[in-house]
Amino acid sequence: MEYRFSDKLADLRPSAIREIFKSLVDPSIISFAAGNPAAESFPVDELARLSAEILATAPVQALQYSITEGYPPLREAVAKRQRAVFGIGKSVAAGDAFNDSTLIVSGGQQGIELACKVFCNEGDVVLCENPTFVGSLNSFRSNGACPVGVEMAADGIDPDALERAILENPRVKLLYLIPTFQNPSGVTMSAEKRRRVYEIAKKYSLPILEDNPYGELRFAGKELPTLKSMDTEGLVIYCSSFSKILSAGMRLGFVIAPEAIVSKMAVAKQGEDVHTNIFFQMLCHRFLTECDLDAHIAKIRALYRRKCALMLGELEKQLPDGITFTRPEGGLFIWCTLPLGCDMNAFVQAALARKVAVVPGTTFNCDPSAPSRSFRLNYSTPTDEQIVEGVKRLGEAAREFIR
Amino acid sequence: MEYRFSDKLADLRPSAIREIFKSLVDPSIISFAAGNPAAESFPVDELARLSAEILATAPVQALQYSITEGYPPLREAVAKRQRAVFGIGKSVAAGDAFNDSTLIVSGGQQGIELACKVFCNEGDVVLCENPTFVGSLNSFRSNGACPVGVEMAADGIDPDALERAILENPRVKLLYLIPTFQNPSGVTMSAEKRRRVYEIAKKYSLPILEDNPYGELRFAGKELPTLKSMDTEGLVIYCSSFSKILSAGMRLGFVIAPEAIVSKMAVAKQGEDVHTNIFFQMLCHRFLTECDLDAHIAKIRALYRRKCALMLGELEKQLPDGITFTRPEGGLFIWCTLPLGCDMNAFVQAALARKVAVVPGTTFNCDPSAPSRSFRLNYSTPTDEQIVEGVKRLGEAAREFIR
Repeated sequence: MEYRFSDKLADLRPSAIREIFKSLVDPSIISFAAGNPAAESFPVDELARLSAEILATAPVQALQYSITEGYPPLREAVAKRQRAVFGIGKSVAAGDAFNDSTLIVSGGQQGIELACKVFCNEGDVVLCENPTFVGSLNSFRSNGACPVGVEMAADGIDPDALERAILENPRVKLLYLIPTFQNPSGVTMSAEKRRRVYEIAKKYSLPILEDNPYGELRFAGKELPTLKSMDTEGLVIYCSSFSKILSAGMRLGFVIAPEAIVSKMAVAKQGEDVHTNIFFQMLCHRFLTECDLDAHIAKIRALYRRKCALMLGELEKQLPDGITFTRPEGGLFIWCTLPLGCDMNAFVQAALARKVAVVPGTTFNCDPSAPSRSFRLNYSTPTDEQIVEGVKRLGEAAREFIR
Repeated sequence: MEYRFSDKLADLRPSAIREIFKSLVDPSIISFAAGNPAAESFPVDELARLSAEILATAPVQALQYSITEGYPPLREAVAKRQRAVFGIGKSVAAGDAFNDSTLIVSGGQQGIELACKVFCNEGDVVLCENPTFVGSLNSFRSNGACPVGVEMAADGIDPDALERAILENPRVKLLYLIPTFQNPSGVTMSAEKRRRVYEIAKKYSLPILEDNPYGELRFAGKELPTLKSMDTEGLVIYCSSFSKILSAGMRLGFVIAPEAIVSKMAVAKQGEDVHTNIFFQMLCHRFLTECDLDAHIAKIRALYRRKCALMLGELEKQLPDGITFTRPEGGLFIWCTLPLGCDMNAFVQAALARKVAVVPGTTFNCDPSAPSRSFRLNYSTPTDEQIVEGVKRLGEAAREFIR
C-alpha cells in the first residue's frame, strides 16, 4: 500500500555517509569516508575491568530504569571537566542570572536533535556554517526545520554574512556552529570571530547551539575560548560527547545549557528514549574519576597528529597543483577542493573506481541542490599503509581527471 | 532571558511518573507508582559472563560506531523469536505484497516516537485507547501530534467509538494500541475485538502502532493473536522491547514493520542517536542465542503471578466496597477506580500522607484536563512485605476518605 508519511520525512533520504559506511563491505576499498575514531582510541582494558566491577557490585542499578537527566555522579563529573578544560559554566560562577545544568544524552547527535525540537516549529530556520555536519542537517530536517547555510572562510563563519542571514530569515530560531575543527571542513573559528559571532547572537537574542565533539582532539595550535565560556546571557547550548575519546558505539554525550532549556530538552528526551543506557553512564563516570583521562587523550592526540601529518604529506606529494586542502589543528577531517570547472561528483566516482572512498562535498551542503567542488577525507580510521596507498590512488585519479 | 520554545514543547511538562520516581528518595514511602521490572528479573550472572567475553573477543566492534538499522545478527534473532512466539511476519511468508523488516531502537519508547515522527505533521491526530501509556502521550505531544482518546471496556477499546473517532478526526494518521496487558489499565483486548479493530483500520487505511512491551509476561489466561499476526495489508507497525525481560536500563527495543516504513524510521533514528548502543545489542544477541530465554521468562512469569495474586488478595481484604480494580492476566499493573463522586486527587494525596505512592489516573488521559476516578498500582517492584503493608495503608486512607 501507499503510505502517507509526514512532510518532514517524506523526501528525506538516509545520510550519504551512513550509506557509504554500509556499502564498505568490499575489503579491497580504502575508506577515507568514515568519521570513526581510531580503533586504538578505545581504552579496552580499563573498560573491561570497570564493566566487570559494576556488574559484580551494582548490577541492579546498572540494569534498571533510571532518571532522564542522567546519572547524577556522571553529570557532576562532566560539568567539572568541561569547566576545567573549556571554561564551561565559568560565567555562571561569576554571578550571572542564569543557571547552567547538565543533561546526559544518547550521543552528541541527540543533544543537537533535542535542541532543534525544543526551539523549532516546522518551517523554522536553523542557521549553520556551510558546509556542515550532515548528521545535524538530518536532525534539523527530520524535525521539519530548515537549515540555511552561511559561508565560511579559513578562520570560520563570515560574521557579516551571518548578520545578513539573521535579518533575511525572520523565522530563524537557532544558530548551529562547530567552532573547533569543524566537520567537514577542519576549519577552526578564530578568537576574534568567536567574539563577533557571540555579540551578533546576543544582539538578536538568538540561541547558539555550540557543537564541540572534537574539542579534546587538538594536536596543533593553541586553545581558543568556547562560545559557551563567553556566555553572559544564557544564550549558548553546549553539546559534546565521549564518542571520540572513549567509545563511539556506547552512544553517550552531554548538553550543558541554562536550566530552563535543559528541563525542556529533558521532557523531549523522555519521549525519545526515557534515559541513556545507565550501565555505560556508570562506566563512563568510573573512567572519568578513576582512570587518567588526560593521559589517554594525550595518546589519541599524538596518534592523530601523526596520521594527519602523514596524510597531508602524501597529499602534497601526490595531488596535482590546483587541488587545495585544509590543514586542521585537530579533529578527524581534511577538506579538499578541486579547481574551478571540475566536476566533483565525477572525481569521486573516478576515485571509487580506483577503490578509494571519499565523501562528496554536496553531502554537507545546507541546500542539497547547491554544487560543491570539495570532498572530505578522514585520517583517523585508515592504517598508515592505507593512507599512503589511498592518497596515491587519489593522485592517479586526479591526474587522469584534471586536464 | 526569556526563551521562545517551540509550540509543541512550550507547555509540555515532565511525565508525572518520572517526577514521582525522582521524588521517591524517602525510603519510608512504599511505592506502587513505578513501572519497573522486578530486580530479580535481570539475568545478572549470564549478562556479566557474556559482557566479559564480548570485551575480550570483540572489543573494537562493541565500542565503535555501527549501522542505524541495528546489529544484523540481533535483528535476525529478534525476527525469529517474534515470529515463533507472536506470529509476527507469518502473513509475509504466506506471500503478501509487503516485506517486513526489523529495526533495533533505543527502547520501545523510541519506536513509538519514530512512528509518530514519520507519519505525523504538527497538528495531526493519533487515536489512542483512553487511558493510555503516558510515555507515548509525551512522545506524540513532543512531536506536535494530538493524542485523541477512544474509550475502553474490560475487553479493550470500543470498535464503534473507534470508527466514530476516525470519522470525526480527518487529520488522524495513526492508531496507537497496547492490546495486551494494557498500561495503565491492565486490560487485554479480546480476540473478537482485535479482528474488528484490524478490519476498521483496514477499511480506512489507517496505520496501527501496536505496542507489545508486556506480551511475554502472561501468567494467566490464553495467548491471543497480535494485530501484527493478522496484518495482510502492511498496516501494522509492531513495537516491543527487552526492558521487561532482560534489562530496562540498557534501552533496547525493536520495531517490526513493512520495509518502506522501517526505512523512514531509520532515517529519523539517524538524526536522533545514529544507532543504539552496539555493546548491548551484541550482548542481547548472545543472550538470545546462547542462554535459555524461555526458562528465564518462565521465572519472571511465576514471580509476577505470585505478586499480582498477593496484591489482588490484599486489595480484596483491605479496600472498602465500591472501589473496583482490574484483574490482569499479565504485565505489571492493576487499575483501581473509586466510586462515583469521589475526588481521586484528594485520595492520592491522602495515600501519600500515609506514605504510599500511586499514580493518579489523570496522568494517563489523552485529554489532560479530563477528570479521572482511577489510579494505577504496580506489583512488580515492591517486596511482598511492602505490598501487604502498602495496601493496608491504602485501605485506611480509603475508609477515612470515602464516607
